[in-house]
Amino acid sequence: MTEIVDRPAGASSKKPAPTRAASRKAAAPRAAAAKAATNGAPAPVVDVAALGELLLGKWADTRRTARALAARPELHKAEGLTHTEHRRRVFGQLRILVENGAVHRAFPASVGGADEHGGNVAGFQELVIADPSLQIKAGVQWGLFGSAVNHLGTAEHHAKWLPGIMNLDIPGCFAMTETGHGSDVASIATTATYDPATEEFVVHTPFRAAWKDYIGNAATDGLAAVVFAQLVTGGVNHGVHAFYMDLRDPETKGFLPGIGGEDDGVKGGLNGIDNGRLHFTHVRIPRTHLLNRYGNVDADGSYSSPIASPGRRFFTMLGTLVQGRVSLDGAAVTASKLALKTAIQYATERRQFNASSQTDEEVLLDYQRHQRRLFTRLARTYAAGFASEQLLEKFDDVFSGRADTDEDRQDLETLAAALKPLSTWHALDTLQECREACGGAGFLIENRFASLRADLDVYATFEGDNTVLLQLVAKRLLADYAKEFRNVNFGVLTRYVVGQATDAAIHRTGLRGVAQFMADTGSAQKAAIAIKDEASQRALLTDRVQTMVADVGSALKGANKLPQQQGAALFNSHQNELIEAAQAHAELLQWEAFTAALGKVTDPGTRKVLTWLRDLFGLSLIEENLSWYLMNGRLSMQRARTLGDYINRLLVKIRPHALDLVDAFGFGPEHLRAEIATGAERVRQDEARGYFRAQRASGDAPVDEKILLARGSHGSHGSKARGA
Amino acid sequence: MTEIVDRPAGASSKKPAPTRAASRKAAAPRAAAAKAATNGAPAPVVDVAALGELLLGKWADTRRTARALAARPELHKAEGLTHTEHRRRVFGQLRILVENGAVHRAFPASVGGADEHGGNVAGFQELVIADPSLQIKAGVQWGLFGSAVNHLGTAEHHAKWLPGIMNLDIPGCFAMTETGHGSDVASIATTATYDPATEEFVVHTPFRAAWKDYIGNAATDGLAAVVFAQLVTGGVNHGVHAFYMDLRDPETKGFLPGIGGEDDGVKGGLNGIDNGRLHFTHVRIPRTHLLNRYGNVDADGSYSSPIASPGRRFFTMLGTLVQGRVSLDGAAVTASKLALKTAIQYATERRQFNASSQTDEEVLLDYQRHQRRLFTRLARTYAAGFASEQLLEKFDDVFSGRADTDEDRQDLETLAAALKPLSTWHALDTLQECREACGGAGFLIENRFASLRADLDVYATFEGDNTVLLQLVAKRLLADYAKEFRNVNFGVLTRYVVGQATDAAIHRTGLRGVAQFMADTGSAQKAAIAIKDEASQRALLTDRVQTMVADVGSALKGANKLPQQQGAALFNSHQNELIEAAQAHAELLQWEAFTAALGKVTDPGTRKVLTWLRDLFGLSLIEENLSWYLMNGRLSMQRARTLGDYINRLLVKIRPHALDLVDAFGFGPEHLRAEIATGAERVRQDEARGYFRAQRASGDAPVDEKILLARGSHGSHGSKARGA
Repeated sequence: MTEIVDRPAGASSKKPAPTRAASRKAAAPRAAAAKAATNGAPAPVVDVAALGELLLGKWADTRRTARALAARPELHKAEGLTHTEHRRRVFGQLRILVENGAVHRAFPASVGGADEHGGNVAGFQELVIADPSLQIKAGVQWGLFGSAVNHLGTAEHHAKWLPGIMNLDIPGCFAMTETGHGSDVASIATTATYDPATEEFVVHTPFRAAWKDYIGNAATDGLAAVVFAQLVTGGVNHGVHAFYMDLRDPETKGFLPGIGGEDDGVKGGLNGIDNGRLHFTHVRIPRTHLLNRYGNVDADGSYSSPIASPGRRFFTMLGTLVQGRVSLDGAAVTASKLALKTAIQYATERRQFNASSQTDEEVLLDYQRHQRRLFTRLARTYAAGFASEQLLEKFDDVFSGRADTDEDRQDLETLAAALKPLSTWHALDTLQECREACGGAGFLIENRFASLRADLDVYATFEGDNTVLLQLVAKRLLADYAKEFRNVNFGVLTRYVVGQATDAAIHRTGLRGVAQFMADTGSAQKAAIAIKDEASQRALLTDRVQTMVADVGSALKGANKLPQQQGAALFNSHQNELIEAAQAHAELLQWEAFTAALGKVTDPGTRKVLTWLRDLFGLSLIEENLSWYLMNGRLSMQRARTLGDYINRLLVKIRPHALDLVDAFGFGPEHLRAEIATGAERVRQDEARGYFRAQRASGDAPVDEKILLARGSHGSHGSKARGA
Repeated sequence: MTEIVDRPAGASSKKPAPTRAASRKAAAPRAAAAKAATNGAPAPVVDVAALGELLLGKWADTRRTARALAARPELHKAEGLTHTEHRRRVFGQLRILVENGAVHRAFPASVGGADEHGGNVAGFQELVIADPSLQIKAGVQWGLFGSAVNHLGTAEHHAKWLPGIMNLDIPGCFAMTETGHGSDVASIATTATYDPATEEFVVHTPFRAAWKDYIGNAATDGLAAVVFAQLVTGGVNHGVHAFYMDLRDPETKGFLPGIGGEDDGVKGGLNGIDNGRLHFTHVRIPRTHLLNRYGNVDADGSYSSPIASPGRRFFTMLGTLVQGRVSLDGAAVTASKLALKTAIQYATERRQFNASSQTDEEVLLDYQRHQRRLFTRLARTYAAGFASEQLLEKFDDVFSGRADTDEDRQDLETLAAALKPLSTWHALDTLQECREACGGAGFLIENRFASLRADLDVYATFEGDNTVLLQLVAKRLLADYAKEFRNVNFGVLTRYVVGQATDAAIHRTGLRGVAQFMADTGSAQKAAIAIKDEASQRALLTDRVQTMVADVGSALKGANKLPQQQGAALFNSHQNELIEAAQAHAELLQWEAFTAALGKVTDPGTRKVLTWLRDLFGLSLIEENLSWYLMNGRLSMQRARTLGDYINRLLVKIRPHALDLVDAFGFGPEHLRAEIATGAERVRQDEARGYFRAQRASGDAPVDEKILLARGSHGSHGSKARGA
């Protein structure tokens, strides 16, 4: 196994003239560098501490507490364990969380919780710093299992089970997903049939595809479960309901009669969690184990529900799942931040292709391509972080009851379904790019990229498959589009946008007007100014979403009235466009969140640098979809050609502030835990240069054969060529 | 941990009318389905066996032998091992390779080899099927360590060490890379200073950054190494040379005096290989341990070389490294094929969102987005596979001596540097997309995606960092561009292209002409025909490469004459464009390889389907870079807008042949070893549907509450609503 072998284009083998300072101290004067990058204008300076506070957001103290906990070595991921060892370690770590009161905030005050929803998720998101397995195992126990008892159960259930769930006396499962129905909860096939004779439900798995699968805590640790099953009473199937079931004997840890299962075994990551399969053979549970907040069966078997519509009832019961998506969204952003801090730190120290020369060579971060790779992802991480904070506040508003109308809940669902796919995919992309940007060192587990990436991989498909979630968003956009034509109301598509964008006229005709206004001026520089302008970015991004939705909406008009098969086929023939429209919408939400956050920054230096970063994000989005803007006449060829250069100039402007921007994430070495983020590379580089300096000073340095050849003198050194 | 929760847009909850056959046998009539997709025209049929032979290429028998070996369970990756257990297992597997004569083909006949270079690499590429760690560990032992002794040593060295290397008596390292110089071999700092008094070299590591790092076999198994160091004699540094060194005592396995090291520990993958670090403190080795084919030191210390130029000598010595790149290129394609066969097989069986309904619902592969995700990658995999075969033949020509001029070697280097980045990145992308396309099941190690992805991750940065390799390609393209202006010669840029494209006039003016010819015809359908035409695809792809190179070439004109720093800065300001041009060039090579392979297909059905696949590849490339074509006036807005639809229509055409196209890869279950590729999903689906059928027939099925509500009859079933 070896690495690379010769110089890339651009890395001249000629020694550079010694015009630059021979070495720069570890605490390099960033402001001076910044000044150079701005052509002598006074360089902006980032107020790192204030920016850090802004990034911590509304629940800053909770996050700080969670990070202090996540910094403790006993909670850190131990690498190189077998999956069984890792599972044992993580189970032990859960107790530490309990002892530190880290996971009870969301539970009712009646059982010792704090009824605090946003703060609970904020703290949970930070756990990814310690070990993603710990985070997700905690999520299974308290965010899913406990939360289901809390939200779907009633007071008696709370009193009976929540204390044991909270203190981990009852490790449990959230048994919803089945092997045959990963994404389609409504079609799960497990049944719970009421038997009035004994006042019991009979829980049964009718066939292999109906086994519960990928269930955390199922393989070894779960003593109980909330099992989702079709509730049948009196010959009627009332749809999916949740049942509390004991799974294992607390003493022997063996399955109770009628219950069986399998271990899902090793996974691509998150091996600290014992995922497994469960099946039930006519298992009888008391009637009162139905978590009956939204649907009850009386002793005689009669069913009742506060929600008459079975469809609405189903979505209400599943509504608490949004918490998982909100949690993963923020955790993914945190992981991206960890990776970027490490990779950017290393890139400011690592020199390539000239370490033995007499002068400083550029560090990796001075290369344009390296800046492109890392800064575009840094910009998106900021955007995703600000959007994540907005989502969390919305979640807290709904779950606290401060704003929990049906419309609020739908908006929350849509927002989560839009943001979670983008942030989880972005985390995988960022972790991989950072790992590659650090070369072979990036692949060593000691530098954590590969470990985090493996663990976060499944974030893209659990708690809502990203592709399916984006289709839900698209469905909502289409519905809003249909409404728009009925009553000139813009719906969720523009609700977040317009709310924050009071200065811009963002309606379809208005946008067309903006596009016209931005017609070619004949000057490349003016064209660039027009694109980089905040209102123009907003107009371009918004116009794209609206037009894409309108285009698909028109194409699908009347699809509902076609026979089932043709309607579905028509829909399917536009599926790709629909998903792209949903993604464009989600990106616009991120851009708006970044822009809204900019409005909160008062320090002029910070504001200037963050504006560059926001522009980099906005213009990168436009660049990625440039063909759309060109095909649809929204940008001229001439203006489009200026975009790449303008982005390149932004990279140069951001370069001197890159370390500040990742330092604002506020991680200490106890959070990063990456060997190459420790400054070790700088120490090695300094030692190497010191060696060569001393050698030259001593006069002992061997002469390079190339230099001898250039001088035309071989003789005295005994070198001769045998051939041509 | 749970999965997704409700229906995506497009998946109607209405039951489809039972117009389709209720179930289809495992051996579904593909031709009939194909016929449906072609609107009743006689459907093409793929000759899977013949296509399979074409894909196996020139060394088909060697590949078959290698696959038979890779099918043996004792060579398979065992999942869930610790890295130390995995290392022991893989070391044992190396002996099985030796016993089966699987790794000696490239060595000289004089020591029992076969002097067979292409076949050797072909067989090596297939080892990835068993375990990538086994592949790379074999690559370290025989492809790097043994190969260095073979290519850089002389007859005496061969006789002395090759037998022990071949039979694994001497496990060894290829100690080139240093911690401080991942990519820059010319700057390694380890020295080998000749001492004429004792006729020894003194090998020394001057500082920490000069430790050898990421070295396979270094942590535990390596008894010897080929160490690369700066050769110093008589006060002159003659540059990097290779030295044979003993590392460990064969009995105690302890380091010999003066040698030390560290274990690189757990990595992101490939944990069957014991990578480590090595350092040397004034270690003395005999003069004759210099592998002296390209540079010798006489007893008196005088240096001689058959290659006068130190630069050329360096590149000649490093030239054998190209074998590693060729090997990884093919292995990456093989891994992509494994993933696609599994994911496409599963997607033809898996039903989502309707398994309990009375009729068949679409399988995953019927969804447009799913087709986009998998078929575009299938097309690229075919292209990468054909290109890989061309590269391997070129490699064999050069290494067999049949065509090994300097120009041939440079072309080989450039071709390998172009293709290896694309195929290794593509493998990571494909493995990830396939894993996500299989949802939670894709994350289980039993389905292999995550395991292969983790192991192949480092393929993107070892044996030449992909980004650095693309810069080498760009450098060559620029050099050819400069030559073109001197003597109207197109150089490597078009050498492969024009050689295969005798029917198209591919020179700059010709291309401009083609672009003009393709000006709008006013008809969307004609426009699509124009784009999909083979000559048009070639013209568009070639024009882009040439224009990008010309644009950067013009921008950089005179950069060499600027002062060093300004010249480098100018170069750096175009680094991103340069890398993009190199990538476009490599994609064109893949497209040409695919097109050349099409020319070998005689069966009309196979040819038709493969042409669709090649078109999908070509048009996807154009779609990915559509903004370039628009900005540069190569495609009109109108024509560009037809592209997406045309691609969507290709997906529909390819759909009925998808299984044939992956079956042609020729893998058996012993190669795939993925639970979801076994047909288990179909068995589960059939069982589930059988259950519901029987239930309906028996009259025992519970009635759905929604249906009761629709009928407006609740009474007899005891259901009542408590609220609105």
